[in-house]
Amino acid sequence: MIGRRGATRNARVTRYREDGVDRRRDVLAVEEPLEIRLAWTDGAARRTESLAVTMRTPGNDFELTAGFLHGEGVLSRASDLLELTYCTGPEEQKYNVVEARLSPGRAVDWERLRRNFYTSSSCGVCGKASLEAVQAQGCALLPEGPFVREELVASLPDRLLEGQDVFARTGGLHAAGVFDGEGGRRTVMEDVGRHNAVDKVVGHALLGKWLPANDHVLVVSGRASFELVQKSIAAGIPILVAVGAPSSLAVELAGRFRQTLVGFARDGGFNVYATPERIR
Amino acid sequence: MIGRRGATRNARVTRYREDGVDRRRDVLAVEEPLEIRLAWTDGAARRTESLAVTMRTPGNDFELTAGFLHGEGVLSRASDLLELTYCTGPEEQKYNVVEARLSPGRAVDWERLRRNFYTSSSCGVCGKASLEAVQAQGCALLPEGPFVREELVASLPDRLLEGQDVFARTGGLHAAGVFDGEGGRRTVMEDVGRHNAVDKVVGHALLGKWLPANDHVLVVSGRASFELVQKSIAAGIPILVAVGAPSSLAVELAGRFRQTLVGFARDGGFNVYATPERIR
Repeated sequence: MIGRRGATRNARVTRYREDGVDRRRDVLAVEEPLEIRLAWTDGAARRTESLAVTMRTPGNDFELTAGFLHGEGVLSRASDLLELTYCTGPEEQKYNVVEARLSPGRAVDWERLRRNFYTSSSCGVCGKASLEAVQAQGCALLPEGPFVREELVASLPDRLLEGQDVFARTGGLHAAGVFDGEGGRRTVMEDVGRHNAVDKVVGHALLGKWLPANDHVLVVSGRASFELVQKSIAAGIPILVAVGAPSSLAVELAGRFRQTLVGFARDGGFNVYATPERIR
Repeated sequence: MIGRRGATRNARVTRYREDGVDRRRDVLAVEEPLEIRLAWTDGAARRTESLAVTMRTPGNDFELTAGFLHGEGVLSRASDLLELTYCTGPEEQKYNVVEARLSPGRAVDWERLRRNFYTSSSCGVCGKASLEAVQAQGCALLPEGPFVREELVASLPDRLLEGQDVFARTGGLHAAGVFDGEGGRRTVMEDVGRHNAVDKVVGHALLGKWLPANDHVLVVSGRASFELVQKSIAAGIPILVAVGAPSSLAVELAGRFRQTLVGFARDGGFNVYATPERIR
């Protein structure tokens, strides 16, 4: 039942282990935006509204759309749906927009729906637009440095854990920490949301007047998504170290802005997915 | 630097291990909504807009707000900010709204900002409003059954992993799976976003016309947040099993709708945070 179309992508990775460094092929989980549009009839009028954009792994997009709309109270049963279609257009990203057309007589309380939603930081409608939006926001190519030792990078997950307060008690939090080029801890923040943990450390740096953090390394306890790479580039951080896996779009964005993106930093080793030149 | 106010909450948990069952106290990571408001002057007019609601762990809320606004391009430096304040009002939830007041002369391109955002499924403005929103959406108290064996629950994480295709190759995906009361696999879906993985399985059930899934168990590979509990209750699923930790709001919501909420399902054991009566 798992859709395979475009769910993974090959990448070149530089692997650092205690017994040496090599380059090899690796497989990334694809992350791409999906726009969900809703179409329905309102009296004699036909209405179409864009409801949400979510970063997702391609595959089972119709199920994703149906489940999303069910969770929002728009659909109760399959018969509420007339059809689900991809909106193919002149643009490049043909399979990143799904339209759900409701059955005749199935009304939508658009105002209530809007109140039920909340806005969340992101990117734009398609992967291409997203990458451009980051540039347009005034993000510069990151500086060439700092250069860090391999042993330092390998030690960062433990240094992050030492700064975590709540996790030890609950096991339920993401953490983000900023360290200097020698491994000195500037700040560590925790949150149920990993994007929130990153927002907290960036906000701490902004309020403390040390943004852009061009000499610093950001370490995150989970996976490296597009959103985390975007936030760290906006903060001017040249090195992002994730304990988990990076997504395809995270790797693409990091490479474009000359950010060093490290994944699977654990057990004394790590993989570099973009810009390995900063690691000595 | 880690804010401790309200970051954890005590809970009673029923622990199932191979050598027996006991009840003890446990500590949960708190999850609560934070509304971020922006105030600025537009010519002679003073404007205030609600920008976002995010589910977060309380603590360092001003840093969170500053970092969020930086990521959105609203703030470049500390001097762009006049002040950050909690909006205390007559409501109960005093510390769940932060207002960022921009310095005079600091303009906001509100339309551009809105285009940069995307909407994401959730809940409403405060925890209380959220819980009511779920009820208002027509979610019923879950049925008393099904009743499942302890050994079955313990086996579900492995059964989920068996259904995962992409994770084995990338290590980068969340999974959600629906199983019947005997452990039979109905569907497993993967995604970079855990809420998307759940939307996919719920959408699969909706399109296959077997919603509400009152006889089924939902298994998720990560943590159990408020949002996942909300989505599973909306789908009528009486038992939610998470490999990771649950949040405080997830436990509260599950208890209110009589959902069995299992966390830390790993290594042959698990903890039950709400409605243990379904486990035999």
